[in-house]
Amino acid sequence: MITFYTYPGPNHRKARIMLEESGEAYETRTVDITKGEQFDPAYLRISPNNKVPAIVDHTASGDVPVFETAAILIYLAEKSGRLLPASGAGRIDAIAWLVWGTGGIGGTLPQLHHYADLAQQVPGTVERFTTEAVRLFNVLERRLKEREYICGDYSIADIPSFCSTAGWLGRVRDLSGGKLGETPAIDRWLKAVAARPAVKRAG
Amino acid sequence: MITFYTYPGPNHRKARIMLEESGEAYETRTVDITKGEQFDPAYLRISPNNKVPAIVDHTASGDVPVFETAAILIYLAEKSGRLLPASGAGRIDAIAWLVWGTGGIGGTLPQLHHYADLAQQVPGTVERFTTEAVRLFNVLERRLKEREYICGDYSIADIPSFCSTAGWLGRVRDLSGGKLGETPAIDRWLKAVAARPAVKRAG
Ligand SMILES: N[C@@H](CCC(=O)N[C@@H](CS)C(=O)NCC(=O)O)C(=O)O
Ligand SMILES: N[C@@H](CCC(=O)N[C@@H](CS)C(=O)NCC(=O)O)C(=O)O
Repeated sequence: MITFYTYPGPNHRKARIMLEESGEAYETRTVDITKGEQFDPAYLRISPNNKVPAIVDHTASGDVPVFETAAILIYLAEKSGRLLPASGAGRIDAIAWLVWGTGGIGGTLPQLHHYADLAQQVPGTVERFTTEAVRLFNVLERRLKEREYICGDYSIADIPSFCSTAGWLGRVRDLSGGKLGETPAIDRWLKAVAARPAVKRAG
Repeated sequence: MITFYTYPGPNHRKARIMLEESGEAYETRTVDITKGEQFDPAYLRISPNNKVPAIVDHTASGDVPVFETAAILIYLAEKSGRLLPASGAGRIDAIAWLVWGTGGIGGTLPQLHHYADLAQQVPGTVERFTTEAVRLFNVLERRLKEREYICGDYSIADIPSFCSTAGWLGRVRDLSGGKLGETPAIDRWLKAVAARPAVKRAG
């Protein structure tokens, strides 16, 4: 049994999809980050970076806490034997694209959100993070032109990028003022991932 | 034999230290990012996100290209059997802290560098990224108060955070105007990592 510590938000969905894909049994516990519950000492022992999501796997040999979305996905993939090749070039390729999705797209869009939606107009900031988001979506489009999913077969690499792209592609296109063109390969891939039963169950 | 594609910079050192720690034989090829060589189609087949560092491992069963610093460290650890437990809670903890180091500290400091050093004064930006860097260094200090290295024994988790912290801790302390206090545990750890033969060889 796995306990899933979370709060609705972009990273929540990435972990939840993988929990559904893995077939592991889990229960959900809300950590209300609007009330500062992520700073509770008991929670910091699970998630020392004071963020959601995190999981604790209650195994026969003891509790295994895992924080960082990318690590949660790797953990669940290795445990379940799903969505990550056990060896070979395909294994490390999926890990590289997973990290690219969580750190690259997943690191850029919250900055864009901050400057486009939350902060008062700060000169140049929306342009800076829009330019980087456009670059990243172009990398993704190029990749998906040649492969059905990011690493060929559907894998943990698709999950973070899917969650980020589904919510942001149209917005970045608008903000880019024409610099991000059509993305037929991404559009096709978004539909294919969204149609997966586990992704539907995750909501 | 591994080919190491790189250019001097913060991520270069992380990969180089791990190449030295792993004991693998490697040769270095410069990708001059000031001349745009990271966009060469041949290089993009190795590093589709147009960044350094990347490696290609020339194995008996074919070439294995790896991009993203975190993935390079995981690849070399799994190949060499060094600095990453093969299973158990320690394994995923090292991966979580590795991702935290490359994505968290490693994602924040380049933004701080941009706004503190390269861009013209943009209201609030230096404060924003300094605040996040202070938070991250406090997470690290708390962690290293209880453990000799980030995950107990020295592991791949230490390498990205070491490279980022060594160059930036004092600067962030200055920029924070007193908000980042003393960090005796980080100071001790920086000295211990710097003293490793592989870290010295990496330069
Ligand atoms: N690098 C982390 C980021 C997680 C993250 O940013 N979580 C946000 C919600 S989506 C959070 O917990 N914020 C609370 C806080 O910053 O105190 C991951 O990939 O899991
Ligand atoms: N997420 C990447 C970041 C790598 C990165 O930012 N590399 C810089 C040099 S330190 C680069 O190649 N810049 C060239 C460019 O952006 O075109 C990693 O961890 O490897």
